[in-house]
Amino acid sequence: MPDSEIISLEDAEALITRVLCAQDVPEAPARSVAAALVAAEAEGQSGHGFSRLEDYVGQVRSGKIRARAEITSRQISQTSLLIDAGHGFAYPALDQAIDWGVQVAQCYGTAAISIMNSHHCGALSVQVEKLAREGLIGLMVSNAPAAIAPWGSSVPVFGTNPIAFAAPRNSAEPLVIDLSLSRVARGKVMHARKSRQSIPEGWALDAEGKPTTDPEAALAGSMIPIGEAKGTALALMVEILAATLAGANHSPEVSSFFTPDGPPPGSGQFLLALRPEGKEAFADRLEALLTTVSNLEGARLPGTRRNSAIAHARACGLDVPRHYLDTARSLT
Amino acid sequence: MPDSEIISLEDAEALITRVLCAQDVPEAPARSVAAALVAAEAEGQSGHGFSRLEDYVGQVRSGKIRARAEITSRQISQTSLLIDAGHGFAYPALDQAIDWGVQVAQCYGTAAISIMNSHHCGALSVQVEKLAREGLIGLMVSNAPAAIAPWGSSVPVFGTNPIAFAAPRNSAEPLVIDLSLSRVARGKVMHARKSRQSIPEGWALDAEGKPTTDPEAALAGSMIPIGEAKGTALALMVEILAATLAGANHSPEVSSFFTPDGPPPGSGQFLLALRPEGKEAFADRLEALLTTVSNLEGARLPGTRRNSAIAHARACGLDVPRHYLDTARSLT
Repeated sequence: MPDSEIISLEDAEALITRVLCAQDVPEAPARSVAAALVAAEAEGQSGHGFSRLEDYVGQVRSGKIRARAEITSRQISQTSLLIDAGHGFAYPALDQAIDWGVQVAQCYGTAAISIMNSHHCGALSVQVEKLAREGLIGLMVSNAPAAIAPWGSSVPVFGTNPIAFAAPRNSAEPLVIDLSLSRVARGKVMHARKSRQSIPEGWALDAEGKPTTDPEAALAGSMIPIGEAKGTALALMVEILAATLAGANHSPEVSSFFTPDGPPPGSGQFLLALRPEGKEAFADRLEALLTTVSNLEGARLPGTRRNSAIAHARACGLDVPRHYLDTARSLT
Repeated sequence: MPDSEIISLEDAEALITRVLCAQDVPEAPARSVAAALVAAEAEGQSGHGFSRLEDYVGQVRSGKIRARAEITSRQISQTSLLIDAGHGFAYPALDQAIDWGVQVAQCYGTAAISIMNSHHCGALSVQVEKLAREGLIGLMVSNAPAAIAPWGSSVPVFGTNPIAFAAPRNSAEPLVIDLSLSRVARGKVMHARKSRQSIPEGWALDAEGKPTTDPEAALAGSMIPIGEAKGTALALMVEILAATLAGANHSPEVSSFFTPDGPPPGSGQFLLALRPEGKEAFADRLEALLTTVSNLEGARLPGTRRNSAIAHARACGLDVPRHYLDTARSLT
């Protein structure tokens, strides 16, 4: 059991904000980053929470993340917007994307937002949920450093390219789906390397495209996609929506989201907001579908564990490994 | 080698149109169905081609497909449309969806179209490709009779719920992706049953959720999704976009697309059209990405086989099992 400490969501956000402000990040973007990391931590996605802070600080210090990035945006059409995150954090750009998307989808029915010159966007679930809380269907995809090889080859070209989706419900938390297109998260392989453990077969291939249980060889190779050729086809779709459309870097040019060296990642995101007709009627139909699923023996709705984690974190605070908090406090 | 006959695309369309007109389907929708079936056949998706015609006729005769369905539509917002296919064929409704989607996406940047009271929509690739030929990014999803069980349960709730995507290219056929969320198409299991062969393990589960190699048990059970729980989460996403949003029947209520008995399927489809900014610049970036993929040893771009099949069919005609053509001619 690693040594850990309970911290409230408010204190966690305040701490992260202080850390970032101490690195010359202005308060508004610092708060945005803090809110996103804490929200990810609260829903149990610790790989997108406190564990990222030290690496973010390293990248701010090296200039790989621009502390004082200027976010600019340009309307492409009445319902589509291109945001240039200016090689700063992704989260303040995502906030703008969602504000704009909500307004435009409420008015025009649909809204599509692309983000370029972006960075690690954390838990996509956190972002699409915001759209669903405004009564909209939300869809989001992102690219990331190359990790998945096109089916049949051994050279990674696509990121683990996540897809997230959310839909509003009546008197229940929104339905939230968030998944990456690799069979398992790349973070699990990194964790195995750190703790000097082998990985199960079926997670990754080595640089020659052969199955491996060695995390080092896996990180030099590629992650196995879900659904074989279907998974890499979906990864290509995500790559086009998240990067090609935005004019962002494609995954092979996206530098590490972890290390302070190299050029900025310049990754891309895409968000879509859809206004369902008749919010109540839509939610009633959705409830019928979800009830069918949740009444089945053995079945679980996506997001069930997430909702429990969030409720627990709100009531009891976050249980964070002490070394993350010690590091954070040392960085303020 | 089954006995087959070469027929030109034009003759094939004319034959199918005649067959449907002989069943009291008006000429315009008959032509639409014929074009879709022949396009699917041409790209090598024979499961959505001539093989469907006899079943379509059976359903028109029983009234499960309304020969003279009135298609109505209602604009939900400036950029979203709900089409009621009136329990007729899906294809004429899809034609309207695409016409409207192209116009609206050209003007507003995005367009979202839902179709309810619909039927089998064949090869989605055929539809999204039309959007890409107009310079748009196209996305389409559909539900279908329940075939995939939520992960952990053994009762099918979702259709094989396909996802299709297309993007325009400079001086090349559009990039087209089209995949269902089951590991293999349900049609392959039906084919195995017909030809009294067993199916490989990994395709399907029996009604108790156990792996089976018996096609009969598989059809009474469920198809295994790609990516385990991730696949059923994607199937739920597709179900919500294709059916819940439209107010179409959810997959458990969607009746067979094959048999003449029972109520109309009332399935749903969803299409999204997106206008990329700077068509040329977008296509140049896409070309760079696709070149990276196609230069890799062992990798193949999605749609490569499809494009060859289409080119061959245009040049040499379709090679169709003779019994399908004999049946068609007997139905005129």
